[in-house]
Amino acid sequence: MTIGDLRTSDRLLLGPGPANVDPRVMRALQTPVLGHLDPEFMAVLAELMGMLRGVFETKNELTLAVSGTGSAGMEAACVTAVEPGDSALVCTAGYFGARLQEVLKRCGALVTTVEAPWGQPIDPEDVRKAAAAKKPKLIAIVHAETSTGVRHPIEDVAAIAKSHDALLLVDAVTALGGIPLRADEMGIDLVYSCTQKCLGAPPGMSPVTVSEAARNRIRARSRGNQSFYLDLEALLSYWSGGTYHHTMSATMIYALREAARMCLEEGMGSRWARHEKAGKALQAGLEAIGLKLFAPTQCRLPQLTTVETPAGVDEARVRCRLLQEFNIEIGAGLGPLRGKIWRIGVMGANAYAQPVLTLIAALEGILAGEGFGFPGGAGVAAATRAFAP
Amino acid sequence: MTIGDLRTSDRLLLGPGPANVDPRVMRALQTPVLGHLDPEFMAVLAELMGMLRGVFETKNELTLAVSGTGSAGMEAACVTAVEPGDSALVCTAGYFGARLQEVLKRCGALVTTVEAPWGQPIDPEDVRKAAAAKKPKLIAIVHAETSTGVRHPIEDVAAIAKSHDALLLVDAVTALGGIPLRADEMGIDLVYSCTQKCLGAPPGMSPVTVSEAARNRIRARSRGNQSFYLDLEALLSYWSGGTYHHTMSATMIYALREAARMCLEEGMGSRWARHEKAGKALQAGLEAIGLKLFAPTQCRLPQLTTVETPAGVDEARVRCRLLQEFNIEIGAGLGPLRGKIWRIGVMGANAYAQPVLTLIAALEGILAGEGFGFPGGAGVAAATRAFAP
Repeated sequence: MTIGDLRTSDRLLLGPGPANVDPRVMRALQTPVLGHLDPEFMAVLAELMGMLRGVFETKNELTLAVSGTGSAGMEAACVTAVEPGDSALVCTAGYFGARLQEVLKRCGALVTTVEAPWGQPIDPEDVRKAAAAKKPKLIAIVHAETSTGVRHPIEDVAAIAKSHDALLLVDAVTALGGIPLRADEMGIDLVYSCTQKCLGAPPGMSPVTVSEAARNRIRARSRGNQSFYLDLEALLSYWSGGTYHHTMSATMIYALREAARMCLEEGMGSRWARHEKAGKALQAGLEAIGLKLFAPTQCRLPQLTTVETPAGVDEARVRCRLLQEFNIEIGAGLGPLRGKIWRIGVMGANAYAQPVLTLIAALEGILAGEGFGFPGGAGVAAATRAFAP
Repeated sequence: MTIGDLRTSDRLLLGPGPANVDPRVMRALQTPVLGHLDPEFMAVLAELMGMLRGVFETKNELTLAVSGTGSAGMEAACVTAVEPGDSALVCTAGYFGARLQEVLKRCGALVTTVEAPWGQPIDPEDVRKAAAAKKPKLIAIVHAETSTGVRHPIEDVAAIAKSHDALLLVDAVTALGGIPLRADEMGIDLVYSCTQKCLGAPPGMSPVTVSEAARNRIRARSRGNQSFYLDLEALLSYWSGGTYHHTMSATMIYALREAARMCLEEGMGSRWARHEKAGKALQAGLEAIGLKLFAPTQCRLPQLTTVETPAGVDEARVRCRLLQEFNIEIGAGLGPLRGKIWRIGVMGANAYAQPVLTLIAALEGILAGEGFGFPGGAGVAAATRAFAP
């Protein structure tokens, strides 16, 4: 059987993630694999736990990475937080809020939702009323909703959770590393993320942290965890105690370690500011082309911009041309936003001037060819100005 | 915050896995990340499904890799195969048979066990009686038990499952690529493996295949899958239909593709023969040193050899000296075999003469220094002879 060499393109990844990976992180992948019980590997894990605490801004002992992608982290947090019959309040204003509902239901939780239209932030007043009525054991919310580009009001919801003695579960898949997230200060009990967005590693791991208060309450529950693979307490026994659980991917750990190291060298505050600057420049460029941004100004994410596809333009054709002619990936809309928006991410190694200017130039050119927009490079000019010191 | 460069050793990995990774597979890790919905990536997945069918020797449509390690594959197979209240018969004669029980219980299955002492194969007669008494919906068994080095009688158990119209679930974590496993011919309904043993990739993915007959029966069940992340039908919709499920790790897929390509280039039969030869040579060398092999001859695995630790020798000290003085990892015993056996794997890129001779030479030297064994290189001589054509 003859199978050819792998031949793939080197894309500029400006969709909702994965983003391009820094060469330092790519080099880390070449580190020879260590056994999952090797003392050297256990030392790498111990150090990485400390680094992840720095990234999450937490002191939580239970801070580690689940051996799967962000969706594995979501499920690990959910199977940990609830047992069948528990009441859970899920804030839903997009695809990933809906996924949280789905996963919590599969855990046997009795789910109530607080909804906002896709593209709008959750209204804390709605959460307050629902929490008062339902007395949920858990409130779950997405920090940066990847399907809409909207930042949800975590601090307000945290205060409500606290006042009702409910645990707060936060999806930080798109948030972590891109916008301010301070797990302890914000009062978050369980939070998970991914590696391939604002942290700057390849996909494959899911950093998670759980507060001591949450762990104490979870320990008191009557049933065991429905998942073995995603059992966070068992994972902690391995990460910090060397009790065999599963064979960790040393390769993925090396990459995550290098990415977390880069985050901490840069400083989380500087990293958030870099994403803010790149996102604002992208948004200035898009508006100067004549496009309309989808998420409202006051809750607009910098690292993931949603933009309305212009009337009369074949949006799939534009994405296809970006990919084929310019080797650039951007994201389509999900669910009810399919065909109505594009999702453009500037995350991690892409939250710099070059990727932004390249995208704006290519998009401006394609749209002009499709009969839309202002010719003359207004978009590039605006984005370039936004990067000026 | 200053964190140093990653500094780790380049071990010879002769434990129960991970094994060392071929340079071709390591190079594949450097392939630039593609988006999980990029047409180029979907083509890679489609091709990989065909390659995995070749590795498993199956025509099953549902043949893919779960985004997690072998334990994730185990859980994916279990949540797919059973729903709460289903009767499952688990053959247990080691650590991973026990884990199968644990995972099936967490799925709500009513588990009955057929046991054999750790180190002995399951007796098909016991399975026959238990199946007749319990009428299980599922029979689960480990093909190559990693904790004991024993090969279990899959064909016999498959015939029993067929005669009772039960599904057969097989753990092939240590088996796949190392000993003959022909999923269709053997009548296996669900089988999962890992990447870091006889397939020769880094840990991080779990190849899985499910028969059409099993899928038809599973479709008819009353409840949905308790897991979202490990829902194999949803994963198939993504792998073969592009319906977004989670962000696959392109990096891990590239590595698995190259490893699977190497398997198919070599041919599964040649690969099994290579493991057989390397394992036999290792075993000849160990016996010539004066050590006693733990697994009985007739069910002894070639790719994972268990050997009794000699009386009067500090087994942990021997492992520690192998690691520190020779940079070689071997495995300790698990559970009741802790301190009683070593587990030595010659898998994938290590199923060749050099790793075997290096281990035998180092172990022979250390044991002689600890007052055990026959001096004069009898072990190396025996292992070397075993590699002669």
